[in-house]
Amino acid sequence: MLPVETSLELREKYSHDWTEDLRFLPDAVALPSTSEELQKVLAYAYERDIPIIPSGGRTGLSGGMLPVYGGWVVSLEKLNRLRRIDTQNLLAVVEAGVITQTLHEAVEAVGLFYPPDPSSRGSCTIGGNIAHNAGGVRAVKYGTTREYVLGLEAFLPDGRPLRTGSATVKNSTGYNLTQLLVGSEGTLAVIHTATLKLLPKPRHVRTLLYGFSDARAAVAAVVEILQNGILPTAIEFMERDAVLFGQAYLGEKLYPGAEEVGGLLLIEVDGTYPETLEAECAEIEKYAFAGGAVRSWYAQTADERERLWKLRRCLGVAVKSSGPYKEEDTVVPRAVLPELLEKVKALGRQYGFRSVCYGHVGDGNLHVNILRDGLDDRAWREEVPKAVEELFRFVVANGGAISGEHGIGWVQRRYMPIQFDPVQLTLMRELKRVFDPKGLLNPGKIFP
Amino acid sequence: MLPVETSLELREKYSHDWTEDLRFLPDAVALPSTSEELQKVLAYAYERDIPIIPSGGRTGLSGGMLPVYGGWVVSLEKLNRLRRIDTQNLLAVVEAGVITQTLHEAVEAVGLFYPPDPSSRGSCTIGGNIAHNAGGVRAVKYGTTREYVLGLEAFLPDGRPLRTGSATVKNSTGYNLTQLLVGSEGTLAVIHTATLKLLPKPRHVRTLLYGFSDARAAVAAVVEILQNGILPTAIEFMERDAVLFGQAYLGEKLYPGAEEVGGLLLIEVDGTYPETLEAECAEIEKYAFAGGAVRSWYAQTADERERLWKLRRCLGVAVKSSGPYKEEDTVVPRAVLPELLEKVKALGRQYGFRSVCYGHVGDGNLHVNILRDGLDDRAWREEVPKAVEELFRFVVANGGAISGEHGIGWVQRRYMPIQFDPVQLTLMRELKRVFDPKGLLNPGKIFP
Repeated sequence: MLPVETSLELREKYSHDWTEDLRFLPDAVALPSTSEELQKVLAYAYERDIPIIPSGGRTGLSGGMLPVYGGWVVSLEKLNRLRRIDTQNLLAVVEAGVITQTLHEAVEAVGLFYPPDPSSRGSCTIGGNIAHNAGGVRAVKYGTTREYVLGLEAFLPDGRPLRTGSATVKNSTGYNLTQLLVGSEGTLAVIHTATLKLLPKPRHVRTLLYGFSDARAAVAAVVEILQNGILPTAIEFMERDAVLFGQAYLGEKLYPGAEEVGGLLLIEVDGTYPETLEAECAEIEKYAFAGGAVRSWYAQTADERERLWKLRRCLGVAVKSSGPYKEEDTVVPRAVLPELLEKVKALGRQYGFRSVCYGHVGDGNLHVNILRDGLDDRAWREEVPKAVEELFRFVVANGGAISGEHGIGWVQRRYMPIQFDPVQLTLMRELKRVFDPKGLLNPGKIFP
Repeated sequence: MLPVETSLELREKYSHDWTEDLRFLPDAVALPSTSEELQKVLAYAYERDIPIIPSGGRTGLSGGMLPVYGGWVVSLEKLNRLRRIDTQNLLAVVEAGVITQTLHEAVEAVGLFYPPDPSSRGSCTIGGNIAHNAGGVRAVKYGTTREYVLGLEAFLPDGRPLRTGSATVKNSTGYNLTQLLVGSEGTLAVIHTATLKLLPKPRHVRTLLYGFSDARAAVAAVVEILQNGILPTAIEFMERDAVLFGQAYLGEKLYPGAEEVGGLLLIEVDGTYPETLEAECAEIEKYAFAGGAVRSWYAQTADERERLWKLRRCLGVAVKSSGPYKEEDTVVPRAVLPELLEKVKALGRQYGFRSVCYGHVGDGNLHVNILRDGLDDRAWREEVPKAVEELFRFVVANGGAISGEHGIGWVQRRYMPIQFDPVQLTLMRELKRVFDPKGLLNPGKIFP
């Protein structure tokens, strides 16, 4: 018997992710517990031309798992075994449904480290992280999910098994199908197992928070720090509006005076020896204050570190709980960030929306949250997309991309022609056809 | 007029790379100086069904640029402009023909760092490095070429321009064509410009050399070092036979007593503060001696560092100058290395060949050089490939790959079915067809 259910309750549960307020009811939900069951589900559906929508933790922000044309949502959540943590070779073999934080804790317990750390780590899955090439706060130093995926086990839409890569950190053998699947948002194959690269766990961490008079100064300080050979783990930015928003949500002023500055930089360094980190912090401090920092807050204890992160960590939920909004995931070369921020605010004035911006400034990745507030239906459905289009044109013209870590999914696909010309789009469509000739795998995603 | 020449002298010059003693004469050689010229050459050849073989520094070890079916070698060597080094955003925009060492020197002059460092850095090109996903000695800490390629400008075989990626370190926008082109060995498109990620230049470096009683002990020490949170830049291994070979070639005993040990580990660490490196060296020393090191040599000065690297750096040329040989580029999870080494030696005894092994032990990448010595034609052409096949079966069965950094090219393609099943091979062929429907781009490579 196939592990497929059709109760309305279950179908409703799998009708949405964290993207805006969008809901699409699937015809059924499959919950395979083994790769064999998954294979049977796929083969059965393929023969009957049933669309398949792979699903992880349903924390996506681009609607990548929405069953927009019905079909079956195939949730990988029961394929959640940590098959192997290999302390000799610094790698892990995990099933797609493993929660990211579960992997973090398991490898850290044996002195190892899996760097990708999306905000949703407590509920997102490794499979979903791979499908979207998830980033997170540690990408400045450690890169994104793609840097940690060495090999994959997947099924093609018709159920044929596809293995890619190897259990090695180097590989120049044939086309890199692994990296083609990473970030393909479940449109090419259904990933069920991944071999991941691990690192030794950094022994010590230090966290710093600086208030800058303005965003331009904050970003300039980041450039100065990096150019001088300091490579922090995380460099997070929050504009003043985000600080106010977060404080209102939390109902407390975590960092007295933070609301008076133009923007905050949260910087974390990690390493092997405390002495080094103290020296790095002293250098960061020097560049920060020389570059226009006007306030600073430090963490001495784990509790205080947690407190420095609290505002930043709450922003996603704070924005979400405030009502309807659109989250754009712009990424630009980092020196372009001040202009990008100005562009967002100028568009807000022009189109009449309020925005809250924050993000991974060390990577140039700015999350632009456009709040609906009192906008009427027409403005929300017709005018705001025009503003987003203008924003994305600015991003692409400056060497950036319309998604840094959330993916294109359902809600961003209309903007793809801003990033890609017909040659590129046609090529991508043809690649899709090689993997999925019937077009049954996650239809309606990525392509405009 | 097209920049195409047909003199025998030039055709002979472009008839070979560093692979064994193989030579194939192209029908002509194109030497475009601009991307516009390159585009014209491609469009002209495409219309006339002329095979195109992209070529970089011709330092390849798998015959990737050999014009095995004639056609035109298109050398990118005159497309060698360093278009931009962006110190604000830590990136470089370079043309494919830039020599890797030229890029190293240019970015280091402004305090930045491009980590990939193949042995042939003085003559190989960035385009060739990208085509093969070149590795080198710093991959333990910094990864291979693929980690530094953010975006590409290329031409499809018919001359249509193809841009991939962006100038950002993060990007989750559409399929990752950049990473599909990296390592595709000039079979999908002709890359002419790359946007590369740079890092801050490490301020200090320390180099250590240890002699171990046997290879197993050396590898176990590597695992111990990594597990304890020390991440060296380089961890190179030389078996005793390689030490003897190198010393004979150099005509000097660089490290007295080195010939008496089972194998050498060359370890380099880099970082921001000398104190940290001293502490890391002390820890490495502790793990090395606890793990069976019996001798050690240190570098205090730049000259002494050079001396510690000299033996390792000479091995490629030493082997090449000794007569005909085959270089295999095995990679396995690093803890498998001692067994891999035993397997090589056992195969040597069985098939009657001598081998010299060394490589990037921190990555599990072992270069296995099989010397022809006195083997007769039949043994060399029929028996040795059987041994290689057995070797590769061992590698794949242990989670490894048949090429870690050299690529498949012409000489390894017959072994592809050991790594890949028909599903994978068919998929790769179909991907090739999407890019190159006429099969004109670097024909005869990668596929068996």
